[in-house]
Amino acid sequence: MAKEITSREENYSQWYNDLVKKTGLADHSAVRGCMVIKPYGFAIWENMKAQLDKMFKETGHVNAYFPLFIPKSFLSKEAEHVEGFAKECAVVTHHRLMNNPDGPGVVVDPSAKLQEELIVRPTSETIIWNTYRDWIHSYRDLPLLINQWANVVRWEMRTRPFLRTTEFLWQEGHTAHATSSEALQESQLIHELYARFAEDYMAMPVIKGSKTESERFAGAVETYTIEALMQDGKALQAGTSHFLGQNFAKAFDVKYASENNTEEYVWASSWGVSTRLVGGLIMTHSDDEGLVLPPKLAPIQVVIVPIPKPDEEIAKVANKLMDELKSKGISVKFDDDDTKRVGYKFAEHEMKGIPIRVGIGKRDLANNQVELARRDTKEKALTPLAGLTDHIVGLLDEIQDNLLKRAKDFRSSRTTVVDDFETFKKTLEEVPGFIEAHWDGTAETEAKIREETKASIRCIPNDQKKEAGKCVYSGKESVGRVLFAKAY
Amino acid sequence: MAKEITSREENYSQWYNDLVKKTGLADHSAVRGCMVIKPYGFAIWENMKAQLDKMFKETGHVNAYFPLFIPKSFLSKEAEHVEGFAKECAVVTHHRLMNNPDGPGVVVDPSAKLQEELIVRPTSETIIWNTYRDWIHSYRDLPLLINQWANVVRWEMRTRPFLRTTEFLWQEGHTAHATSSEALQESQLIHELYARFAEDYMAMPVIKGSKTESERFAGAVETYTIEALMQDGKALQAGTSHFLGQNFAKAFDVKYASENNTEEYVWASSWGVSTRLVGGLIMTHSDDEGLVLPPKLAPIQVVIVPIPKPDEEIAKVANKLMDELKSKGISVKFDDDDTKRVGYKFAEHEMKGIPIRVGIGKRDLANNQVELARRDTKEKALTPLAGLTDHIVGLLDEIQDNLLKRAKDFRSSRTTVVDDFETFKKTLEEVPGFIEAHWDGTAETEAKIREETKASIRCIPNDQKKEAGKCVYSGKESVGRVLFAKAY
Repeated sequence: MAKEITSREENYSQWYNDLVKKTGLADHSAVRGCMVIKPYGFAIWENMKAQLDKMFKETGHVNAYFPLFIPKSFLSKEAEHVEGFAKECAVVTHHRLMNNPDGPGVVVDPSAKLQEELIVRPTSETIIWNTYRDWIHSYRDLPLLINQWANVVRWEMRTRPFLRTTEFLWQEGHTAHATSSEALQESQLIHELYARFAEDYMAMPVIKGSKTESERFAGAVETYTIEALMQDGKALQAGTSHFLGQNFAKAFDVKYASENNTEEYVWASSWGVSTRLVGGLIMTHSDDEGLVLPPKLAPIQVVIVPIPKPDEEIAKVANKLMDELKSKGISVKFDDDDTKRVGYKFAEHEMKGIPIRVGIGKRDLANNQVELARRDTKEKALTPLAGLTDHIVGLLDEIQDNLLKRAKDFRSSRTTVVDDFETFKKTLEEVPGFIEAHWDGTAETEAKIREETKASIRCIPNDQKKEAGKCVYSGKESVGRVLFAKAY
Repeated sequence: MAKEITSREENYSQWYNDLVKKTGLADHSAVRGCMVIKPYGFAIWENMKAQLDKMFKETGHVNAYFPLFIPKSFLSKEAEHVEGFAKECAVVTHHRLMNNPDGPGVVVDPSAKLQEELIVRPTSETIIWNTYRDWIHSYRDLPLLINQWANVVRWEMRTRPFLRTTEFLWQEGHTAHATSSEALQESQLIHELYARFAEDYMAMPVIKGSKTESERFAGAVETYTIEALMQDGKALQAGTSHFLGQNFAKAFDVKYASENNTEEYVWASSWGVSTRLVGGLIMTHSDDEGLVLPPKLAPIQVVIVPIPKPDEEIAKVANKLMDELKSKGISVKFDDDDTKRVGYKFAEHEMKGIPIRVGIGKRDLANNQVELARRDTKEKALTPLAGLTDHIVGLLDEIQDNLLKRAKDFRSSRTTVVDDFETFKKTLEEVPGFIEAHWDGTAETEAKIREETKASIRCIPNDQKKEAGKCVYSGKESVGRVLFAKAY
């Protein structure tokens, strides 16, 4: 199986597509740009979802559900929003089909034209703020801390599974606050939460920072982002959190009576991560043999393989181990399918990225030991049966930590401090990755650098050092370095 | 608050709408026929979802996700399916908006017309079976036991929150099997599972049975249903499970190589329950004071109220109780908001349907006791602090059981055995509910009864007694009674 995957060196993009397909994560569909998320891929997303949902709830958020459709006129209400989102989208114009009067099949019933077209939500700020107008009257109604798990549609011209698809799954938080500082704090709280999730669960290190004005969400005053670095040196915007000021409150006339009985516009934040994270997970850890999954998100954390075939004694040891692991909340599979050879199973489990494989053979059992293989380093070790469960629990933590460390080391090796434009261009070729360089703060320079190099400003890092310097492109004054990279 | 709810006797339909609105379950939206599911309503749906998802997984199913859009031509491929689903639906015809050249706002870009229109899924058999063709080659690929949690759209003319909305949330299972009997068994397994969920979690008794041919799902060979009886005597179809035979496999050319190397069409089942269940839950248990929720699905199971105000001693007792209840997996809220009066809080918690209220007052505390009030019977009892947690755990079970019993008793009192058509019509007026009557088995009679009485055949019950009789309408021979009712 594994040999059907193109190597990363040969063609990274093809490697990614092969991996997604061969490991059963996703499949193309009959609808242009839409993917089918297969059970194994969906199980990873479910694990992400469960953890994020827990973190949202722990920080006081609740879930709700708003309509899939947005009246066309809503999109035009916020001036910048319409520019960003009202262009490539799915437009519902009719509500009925009828039998084709001229032949087989069905056709659109021309008499069932909608008075106002409906847009399949590309994001839900407009419909949600239109609803909040009815929910918010007084300061006592605030804050509203609402999240929604939903599908959204953006009509993309070039799509790639998980990374950019016409329809994708995501969560979108939409919060309403009495003061500017509360809304700003909320957007920062979620920014931190996203970074923590990426590092602690995905083992994917991220740079936290703010977007430049030209990269901001359409309608936002400030956009915070977490930026990860993929193995091919391209950056991935993995999650954004927006401080929206009063823009949507003004567009949808959402006011509240303050404690002093004045009438004020409400302050807002919105934030989201999507199935794109699954793409990020793949491109952070996986290798030419297949997926490498961090234990905290792996659908199957441990697989047990009888060598060469299952028998009563092996089954007894395996069942005991399974019970013990399950009681510790570890998901485990006993692969006792005896129609497949051991070598085939090993390759398959490797490809699926299962963090630990336990091989149970007759000879090793006689010595009261089994063989543990870890997916991240491919190391194998004979391990005593005594204390095996605790050992596995510890090893899962070790693998999780090692994946994060490895990804951090990789990022360090691909982050270059650059001070002139020639070196900037050379670095993009020779050490693809993040470049820390001075920038004069103008959209003009940002656009020109992008035009000439395809690298964009990923963010102005939160921990940017204030240092005087010269813009790498214009030579003008700068007060700190920003992060450049080519990006997905 | 509670007095703003219309009484059930006065107007059941208005009572339902009031309840949904005032208890914060759902709200109307700006999009015709689409509702907003508010946090409290969504929390009930989340609890349902979590339990159903667990039951699906325990029976070997996995989740996946298929596209929201279905190419128009797919709907026509299965002859009956197109009649049932290709009519009132949302049709996407364009993929771009542009600035209005003649004024403000945006308009549909006529140059962005889709070659083939896309339908927002009303159900996903067609797109899924089109995908299964690529996934199924040999008997080794079977069975496929896949479920999807998704939103679907059916352009309904008359909508009511939860019960019938243009967009709704549901799960749809789509399974593929090598043999007819396996697919049939799967549809029956899920039928049982739905009934168990309804009774054990929703405390909503249901009649299990088969639909008549004219009420079958479009494209099914057999449709199993669970039918519940609402307080106003109308039936609610609460979940259906379909045996699809080879209809979709033939329509989408899905074949597999059998063990004997013959080529065979694949056998199928599909099944679903939706946010409609929330409506059923409301209309099974609630009363003029508000919601009554079964403990197993209540977002908040126990509320603790300090009487009249929180103080240090009360807070200490409350916190200890909360910790103990939480450690037993019980969700509990301490309502220590001292801007609201105790009476107001009581009415609010009653309206929200919280199963148990614990009132902690100074004087009772001096006697080492608190006041427990149960929502179902409205009984109050002074209860000793010693063993309080265990008592509450037991009481939650008792409430759950009592709700089911009460609903069963109600259903018995509203189920009438009828043998002639005059009594049939009179019974519908005087004892609205289920009617068990003989039917001659023809679609013609079924349609006429419906026309003259608005009552339909809800199902041919699984436990139908084989007895000779005369059809209540035509007087022709019958071999058993079927279940009639007016229905939502």
